[in-house]
Amino acid sequence: MMTCILLLGGQSTRVNLDKPKQFLEINGKELFEYSLSTILSTNLFKNIVLAVESNYLEHVKNILEAKYKGKNISLVSGGNTRQKSVYNALSSIKDENVDYVFIHDAARPLASKEIFVSVANEVQNYPAISSFSKISDTICEKNDTDSIKDYLNREKIIKIETPQAFKFDIIFRAHEEYMKLKNFISTDDASLVKHMGVEVALIENKNFNFKVTTSSDIDLLKKILKN
Amino acid sequence: MMTCILLLGGQSTRVNLDKPKQFLEINGKELFEYSLSTILSTNLFKNIVLAVESNYLEHVKNILEAKYKGKNISLVSGGNTRQKSVYNALSSIKDENVDYVFIHDAARPLASKEIFVSVANEVQNYPAISSFSKISDTICEKNDTDSIKDYLNREKIIKIETPQAFKFDIIFRAHEEYMKLKNFISTDDASLVKHMGVEVALIENKNFNFKVTTSSDIDLLKKILKN
Repeated sequence: MMTCILLLGGQSTRVNLDKPKQFLEINGKELFEYSLSTILSTNLFKNIVLAVESNYLEHVKNILEAKYKGKNISLVSGGNTRQKSVYNALSSIKDENVDYVFIHDAARPLASKEIFVSVANEVQNYPAISSFSKISDTICEKNDTDSIKDYLNREKIIKIETPQAFKFDIIFRAHEEYMKLKNFISTDDASLVKHMGVEVALIENKNFNFKVTTSSDIDLLKKILKN
Repeated sequence: MMTCILLLGGQSTRVNLDKPKQFLEINGKELFEYSLSTILSTNLFKNIVLAVESNYLEHVKNILEAKYKGKNISLVSGGNTRQKSVYNALSSIKDENVDYVFIHDAARPLASKEIFVSVANEVQNYPAISSFSKISDTICEKNDTDSIKDYLNREKIIKIETPQAFKFDIIFRAHEEYMKLKNFISTDDASLVKHMGVEVALIENKNFNFKVTTSSDIDLLKKILKN
């Protein structure tokens, strides 16, 4: 049995909006609904858990009731970090015999149905899987003074994206272990598992699946979604 | 005096098209015309040099005559590598008292007028400048077996983009030196200068300036340009 956690956390400090970007309305749908709709369209998941910042729980609940009635979607309150939000979501399903759990950031509204299916096709073969994209740009490390320090070998450098998928017991254990550590900040869940010594398999995503972070990302997203 | 070199090279081996991607027509304009128009709109450059694969010289010449008459645009035949194309373009203007030269890839059709202006505003302060974008994704090094090898510190890792700009004598010397080396392949011009020990300053580009590489990049570009 597979569950998908969709993260609607984040304060969107890098965009000047009156609300977090995941609740921005674009073409009659809020940003988080794009990935939610894609996840639903896959028919892969018995249930979906949305981790939502507590101030917005009521707001999301109203949208679900109005537009997603009958779907097996539950809500949990997000924590003050991404990691805490995932932990809350995992904890909420720990007694439900979940074999595999997907984790996806709502800030990636363009994640395709295909990448969810590709990851699902491999999920039984690995304890942990992350989707990724190649980087076609030249990649450098910069100095603090805004000059080029080093060129890196771009053949081996990739962008880690979501969805990621895990055997439930492994990702839950990884989160429990790392909740105990202070000063460990992860930007994804695969890194927690990797730090436990578990190998993380990679599946290439060939479609554009960018993370909406800045105001110019939002402008770009609007252009893409208008078509 | 400033010149801009626009590179129309590349065989587009990563896309399945009957012609190189820079000649793909989108909304009545070929792909290379998007950056050409932007470059012209800046009014920064005394002249523009297009480095074009020899099979397409006639084709580009016809477009220039039909649509860009009276503009100071010259054509040079591109070499079989990016580096050779730039060298040919630089050689073609070496007696013209060019102080600063910009180099831009036509495969980045979305480069904004603003980034050209930002680089131009700083060009007198540095021997070499590259535009760059931050990376909002988590960045990893991968193993050959498609698993995660290492997480990299993304704060310091950037995407090097074009436009880049150089003092003419420095970039010309860098190219002459590196033409003599075998087995040295550069993916940009700043790396040649950097290998000579010259510091490359960085200017952040906040607008989306991706390099069109794959078929899915072309689909994305079409969506963005339709608005």
